[in-house]
Amino acid sequence: MPVPDDDISGRFAYEGLDRLIHEKARLGILTSLIRESSAGLTFNELKDRCALTDGNLSRHLNLLEEGGLVRIEKGNRNNRPLTTVHLTDAGRTRFHEYLNILEAVLKDALPADSAVPSPATRPAFSS
Amino acid sequence: MPVPDDDISGRFAYEGLDRLIHEKARLGILTSLIRESSAGLTFNELKDRCALTDGNLSRHLNLLEEGGLVRIEKGNRNNRPLTTVHLTDAGRTRFHEYLNILEAVLKDALPADSAVPSPATRPAFSS
Repeated sequence: MPVPDDDISGRFAYEGLDRLIHEKARLGILTSLIRESSAGLTFNELKDRCALTDGNLSRHLNLLEEGGLVRIEKGNRNNRPLTTVHLTDAGRTRFHEYLNILEAVLKDALPADSAVPSPATRPAFSS
Repeated sequence: MPVPDDDISGRFAYEGLDRLIHEKARLGILTSLIRESSAGLTFNELKDRCALTDGNLSRHLNLLEEGGLVRIEKGNRNNRPLTTVHLTDAGRTRFHEYLNILEAVLKDALPADSAVPSPATRPAFSS
């Protein structure tokens, strides 16, 4: 192998894959939110888009709020309680940093010359 | 919101993000291995590239072997024990399926029109 170890040592540790973000459900929550304007999403919209139960969504949102990634607002609409969730500016920055590492993983795992089937075409969808 | 819920419901659940593969250390191990020929990598090469301790690497390799993703061979080189690790054919297929979902997450989170800083240029490296 012609490459000196210095170039490879720790090369695949991916320290930047923030565990708070990397967890599957939270990755889905943050992906849902980053597509939205500052209006955010309601608790029920998130629950539906991420296919999570009330309990699971609450638990993950609390962790994301503790980490400063999202802001949870409890208000009212038509005299009914309405919870909305927003990505914070810090959350947006941290999520972008995470996504950059994710892109690096894909580049590492899928070299340009590899014959990998392309992902199934997903239906177009505008928010 | 002009989009019917049917298009969005469960859209960000990412069921295909196989938990066995998605864990950060195992993602690094599999990324290291998929770049290699059928010769695989030795235990020590993997340990170095993924910056893992002996114990952690062993634990993750056992889980990957139980899941049928890698094959662990214990042999000898120059009269010293040598453990080598190989991605199985099934492992390669499942990892590619996982990577396809990861690409979908990136496309969902980084729409073409978003102004996202590009990832830092990584040093070129050929295996």
